[in-house]
Amino acid sequence: MSKVQMVVQETVQLPGGFRAAGEAIGLKRSGRRDMALLVSDVPAAVAGVFTTNQVQSATVKLDRERVRGGVARAVIINSGNANACNGPQGLRDADRMTELTGLLLGAPKKQVFVCSTGRIGIAMPMAIIEEGIGKVAAALSPRGGKNAATAIMTTDTRIKHATVTFKVNGKPVTLTGMAKGAGMIEPNMATMLAFILTDAAVERKALQGALKAAADQSFNRVSVDGDRSTNDTTLLLANGVAGNKPLKPGHPAWATFCAALNAVALNLAIKMAADGEGATKLVTVRVLGARSDAEADLAARAVANSLLVKTSWVGDYPNWGRLMDAIGYSRAKVEEEKVSIHYDDLLAVQNGVFAGTPLKALEKIQRQKKFTLTINLNLGQGAAVVYTCDCTEEYVRINYVE
Amino acid sequence: MSKVQMVVQETVQLPGGFRAAGEAIGLKRSGRRDMALLVSDVPAAVAGVFTTNQVQSATVKLDRERVRGGVARAVIINSGNANACNGPQGLRDADRMTELTGLLLGAPKKQVFVCSTGRIGIAMPMAIIEEGIGKVAAALSPRGGKNAATAIMTTDTRIKHATVTFKVNGKPVTLTGMAKGAGMIEPNMATMLAFILTDAAVERKALQGALKAAADQSFNRVSVDGDRSTNDTTLLLANGVAGNKPLKPGHPAWATFCAALNAVALNLAIKMAADGEGATKLVTVRVLGARSDAEADLAARAVANSLLVKTSWVGDYPNWGRLMDAIGYSRAKVEEEKVSIHYDDLLAVQNGVFAGTPLKALEKIQRQKKFTLTINLNLGQGAAVVYTCDCTEEYVRINYVE
Repeated sequence: MSKVQMVVQETVQLPGGFRAAGEAIGLKRSGRRDMALLVSDVPAAVAGVFTTNQVQSATVKLDRERVRGGVARAVIINSGNANACNGPQGLRDADRMTELTGLLLGAPKKQVFVCSTGRIGIAMPMAIIEEGIGKVAAALSPRGGKNAATAIMTTDTRIKHATVTFKVNGKPVTLTGMAKGAGMIEPNMATMLAFILTDAAVERKALQGALKAAADQSFNRVSVDGDRSTNDTTLLLANGVAGNKPLKPGHPAWATFCAALNAVALNLAIKMAADGEGATKLVTVRVLGARSDAEADLAARAVANSLLVKTSWVGDYPNWGRLMDAIGYSRAKVEEEKVSIHYDDLLAVQNGVFAGTPLKALEKIQRQKKFTLTINLNLGQGAAVVYTCDCTEEYVRINYVE
Repeated sequence: MSKVQMVVQETVQLPGGFRAAGEAIGLKRSGRRDMALLVSDVPAAVAGVFTTNQVQSATVKLDRERVRGGVARAVIINSGNANACNGPQGLRDADRMTELTGLLLGAPKKQVFVCSTGRIGIAMPMAIIEEGIGKVAAALSPRGGKNAATAIMTTDTRIKHATVTFKVNGKPVTLTGMAKGAGMIEPNMATMLAFILTDAAVERKALQGALKAAADQSFNRVSVDGDRSTNDTTLLLANGVAGNKPLKPGHPAWATFCAALNAVALNLAIKMAADGEGATKLVTVRVLGARSDAEADLAARAVANSLLVKTSWVGDYPNWGRLMDAIGYSRAKVEEEKVSIHYDDLLAVQNGVFAGTPLKALEKIQRQKKFTLTINLNLGQGAAVVYTCDCTEEYVRINYVE
């Protein structure tokens, strides 16, 4: 990741040439906003990364194909129904959503993308959806970003958005993002949806590379529950309205653009972990000293996905033994007597045994709303970080109560 | 597995030449029984299978070495402290436990095995333990099996024991087992402990092979939470007091012996899944039609370990979409449109989409205390089964409340 520092504003601010809307069309029983539309007034270069799940929603199947075309005018998004495991009808419904959106905007359906999130295996209520598309199209506005970011939420408790502004050849450029995701989250991509919009002009192939790199260091480093959704999608639209010479590697502002993209993506990703279903604590799990980065990742994910570890974080007791247990069964090489573990800056485990740190001090750290666990395997130079959260009774409740 | 049918009695019945005891020595704050001793009056052949975790308790390190000697006189077991991550002192303490037990029984310490289960990383309170060993040794009795089976429990809510009797060359033989395990359970081996005793004479190498095969089809098919403990141990002692010609492959009663061992092991394993921490439902996940048994196993474990799947089982709603999601991200090959899923005998999913089954009928199955999910990938002949349970708010509570 680029080292350029970026100031991230906690807001959604649509870049030039973009409009958005988010409306309540009747998919959510709560009556909350459940359909969003993002539109670029001119054709935008588009990049996308999608779930690696073999079972994929109709929307992922469609978008994955369309992203090859490289051009996007709009993204239509519904929450409340995943349109996954709906067979050929699901594909027809997803296609129809893009067709209708395109008709209303005067754009070919091939340039319209579609995302859905919600329950799997329920037929899409197309009458409601078709009427809803008309409603969001009518509500489009350059100030509609916040409504759109609200409409994509499902079990999210907080809106997730972030904006960075910077200059390219003296021209002001905006890069803004919105995301949703609180459960079924271990992306790669997991149901997380993220949409990042910029008025920068960016060469299409470079755009895809930049998005992939940003996602690998942000969304793909989040785990709420180790489940990977059928619907995960991140789309990045760059419409060039800022008027700069198209960005690509070698352009003097390329590093700045990538830094902005990484900053927005990481900001959104950490918000997802912090807003994990039922979560009360944001926990950063950092593994150092593995034989390779890949092994560090395996160890960090074993910790972040261990149910015993995640439940222990709900309470105050710093149950470091469960961290040792989790790295021990990970597929990373571990030599028990070499392991050290810090809770924030406090050494808890040295040479694989308790370091004698006062429990009260460790408990104080674990009581915080966020803390970092640094596990050093002391075997090599491999490092990885995963952003995760505790697993509370509320997580369980959310996932069985209809 | 052998197809010989065996009648399993839900009891512990010590075979000839065995004595046992279980006492409260003060390790558990609850005041419950927390130390057990199993003794063979004559040297017994011994086989063992142990955790594959790279972080291992002192007891596992010690027993793994001693099982190579092939002879056991006793097993001393404590609950309330895992003696894991205690460094060299932990090893000295474990060794001391076997030494003292051996002194009291007149047996060399090399023939004494030791198991611990409880919290990781807390120094063993050796004064209490040494006094406790004297107490259990004084309480040994041919009728002490139930007390021993009680003393090894931690968060278990029910005693786990099983007995099979059969004949070898006309001689009556008993095979009895006891186990504990409710959390940190995905064996291979996980903290599960199981002890199986028989008065049959069995050739030592054959004994180890039979135990490994039995464990693979029983304890290693259980997952409560996907965590694999530092302490998992299964020991099988055969003391030959029945007086039969030593059993081994080729002996006419070998199949009968293996069937008895498998039946007892499976009975104990299923009891572990049913008594998973906080669990209200025993769920059997069966995957058929995978490209190989190994892939079927990957798919079955993905389902059994999915937090979203396990929490969905708490409620009535048959959230088959989450089953599709879990197999989709497993490392087993899945073609969405070929998948079928049965809830018990009721078809819920066909060709990857909802089969139109009345939801009420599926909900009725999911409300049962136990049910079976059969997932057919329709890609080959591979099959696997995993025994698991739902993940309730109570599971979470157990794991953060001290």
